[in-house]
Amino acid sequence: MEVEQWLHMANGDGENSYATNSRLQEKAMLETRPVLQGAVVELYRSLPDKSTMVVADLGCSSGPNTLLLVWEVIGTISDHNREEEQEQRPPAAAMELQFFLNDLPGNDFNLVFRSLDRLQELTADRRPQYYVAGMPGSFYTRLFPCRSVHLFHSSYSLMWTSKVRDELSRGAYLNEESIYIGKSTPPAVIKLYQEEYQKDLSLFLTLRFNELVRGGHMVLTFLGRKSKDMLLHGEASSMCELFDQVLFFCNVWQGLVEKEKLVSFNLPFYAPSMDEVKAVVEENNLFNVEHMSVFESSWDPQEDDTNDDVVLGCSSSGLNVARCIRAVAEPLIKKHFGEAILDDLFMVYASMISKHIKKAKAKYPIIIIYLKAKH
Amino acid sequence: MEVEQWLHMANGDGENSYATNSRLQEKAMLETRPVLQGAVVELYRSLPDKSTMVVADLGCSSGPNTLLLVWEVIGTISDHNREEEQEQRPPAAAMELQFFLNDLPGNDFNLVFRSLDRLQELTADRRPQYYVAGMPGSFYTRLFPCRSVHLFHSSYSLMWTSKVRDELSRGAYLNEESIYIGKSTPPAVIKLYQEEYQKDLSLFLTLRFNELVRGGHMVLTFLGRKSKDMLLHGEASSMCELFDQVLFFCNVWQGLVEKEKLVSFNLPFYAPSMDEVKAVVEENNLFNVEHMSVFESSWDPQEDDTNDDVVLGCSSSGLNVARCIRAVAEPLIKKHFGEAILDDLFMVYASMISKHIKKAKAKYPIIIIYLKAKH
Repeated sequence: MEVEQWLHMANGDGENSYATNSRLQEKAMLETRPVLQGAVVELYRSLPDKSTMVVADLGCSSGPNTLLLVWEVIGTISDHNREEEQEQRPPAAAMELQFFLNDLPGNDFNLVFRSLDRLQELTADRRPQYYVAGMPGSFYTRLFPCRSVHLFHSSYSLMWTSKVRDELSRGAYLNEESIYIGKSTPPAVIKLYQEEYQKDLSLFLTLRFNELVRGGHMVLTFLGRKSKDMLLHGEASSMCELFDQVLFFCNVWQGLVEKEKLVSFNLPFYAPSMDEVKAVVEENNLFNVEHMSVFESSWDPQEDDTNDDVVLGCSSSGLNVARCIRAVAEPLIKKHFGEAILDDLFMVYASMISKHIKKAKAKYPIIIIYLKAKH
Repeated sequence: MEVEQWLHMANGDGENSYATNSRLQEKAMLETRPVLQGAVVELYRSLPDKSTMVVADLGCSSGPNTLLLVWEVIGTISDHNREEEQEQRPPAAAMELQFFLNDLPGNDFNLVFRSLDRLQELTADRRPQYYVAGMPGSFYTRLFPCRSVHLFHSSYSLMWTSKVRDELSRGAYLNEESIYIGKSTPPAVIKLYQEEYQKDLSLFLTLRFNELVRGGHMVLTFLGRKSKDMLLHGEASSMCELFDQVLFFCNVWQGLVEKEKLVSFNLPFYAPSMDEVKAVVEENNLFNVEHMSVFESSWDPQEDDTNDDVVLGCSSSGLNVARCIRAVAEPLIKKHFGEAILDDLFMVYASMISKHIKKAKAKYPIIIIYLKAKH
């Protein structure tokens, strides 16, 4: 499967678009804010006068979150400059910021570019001067010249692998009842998923190391697992297992999904444990780990993470979760199963999620990792 | 009028899109090739080892020509490297190229980005390594950090001014029977057009000077005039005069265009003479003129410029010219007059052009100017 062509968030700004259904990603951005701000200030202070700081967001998507990183970085430097002024330290000489928003070429860059006007209005009184470019391409390839980027950021993207392993897509191994790693997934298939993930993450680290200036930084957040167990309930895999059931239901009961298509569909996705990530970074040996942690987020973007007692009505919550997942997975699913079944598929999915979260509030773990390039 | 929002080529790749109707621009690119190649080789030779050469195309549009510049630059350096190898000079250390394709945010960047795959296939055996980013924004604002670009290129864009002068759009001065400068245009209105052009070009030169590295280059082509006379036949103004007649016809005879809309429409456009351009560059005093020339191009993209005896059937030629102009002007005209009249308007236009070119082959002048930033 040519992942690069079909793995992008749902375009436009309609009801089912990513732009309308991306509050989960916004919440993760708030969690990573302290780490990001620390990285920005450290880099900013280390730059010579009158230079340009280059920041790239990998997997920027298109929607209200796309410009969050730009907003955060400008705000952080602007606040830092104000503090320096108040303490009457000599002002930093005019520095400029250059942002690159990266995503696959299928991403709706037009939508992003047309929203830049609004950002410029909102930041009119802020310094430094900044410029925002779009950089289409897979982050599993080289995207920037050598030693040209100071800070890489990536949120909710690195759990997508570069491809589904050939052995799986060609059918040499079968993962019959699952689209990811489920209870019925054979150990050999789990191993394929793990190997692809390790290979991709290692490639990603090497590519970015070459593109970073000496000592450049990376702040990465992505879906992960809290335990070594591949199938812990309430995590990413359980939402996939529910989707397995939806596909099975649509196949057996409604004849909407062909058996063959069901068997051959595998997500180019992997939710790693902290240990797995750490092992790849250490073996790769190009970065120091400055910070690594995991936090939990509700699947329902409307839900309050800080208060477990507040549970929204299950059916509306099921709908919210299904919408968020649809915004992310629609192009992939449409490509494989066709457009006609999308509405039915996600209606059934919403109702299954509602039943599932009656038992317990559905949460999933997000890993944050902050890396500095070794000299 | 907010030119920035509406001045972009017709999107998509349908019959009336810019992508399908941009052979004129392609032909101009061929004319400028020797100048461009000279600039690229000179810059390339001057760069230190292992550095990155940054090239920006201003007004890239979306269509088959959008990647022509990237293609030319890669080809030029690739050929140069081959020659160096043949003469057994030591090979240049790995240099990289970073391209920025700039246009207004309304441009169809999605179409451009989705065509990059094909370019990558075609250049698979070429070196150096290159990266292509999109940079949305008006070139009458800052687009890049200080001293970050080696070469600016712009083709068929700089005759668009940043706006229609307020005095005209607010109605303090009237240009009743013309959308640009026609026989009936009052001298005071001509002066407004000229002043806006001079102000814009001077601003453009200053902005780019700040963005260029020391001694950076610019290769610019744009529609111009051959004589000082504002209304020489067969030039840009005569195509505008024909369009004036179309609007007049649609107003008086068909009631399709309201008188008020007709009077208030002015193109944010100016076709300068060589002397006017030179005067602004000299007064601005930031660039040396390395080369300046003018060449003529047929309005009909299907026509053979080298042989004046070959005249295509006038009606098909009229249609070709009308299509090219529609591809460029449609968003502006749609915004002002509404979408409903577009087909009628351009059908009448095509027939008027056919009559016009019966008299003489319709050509228009293109100015090429090659500038180097002063140290």
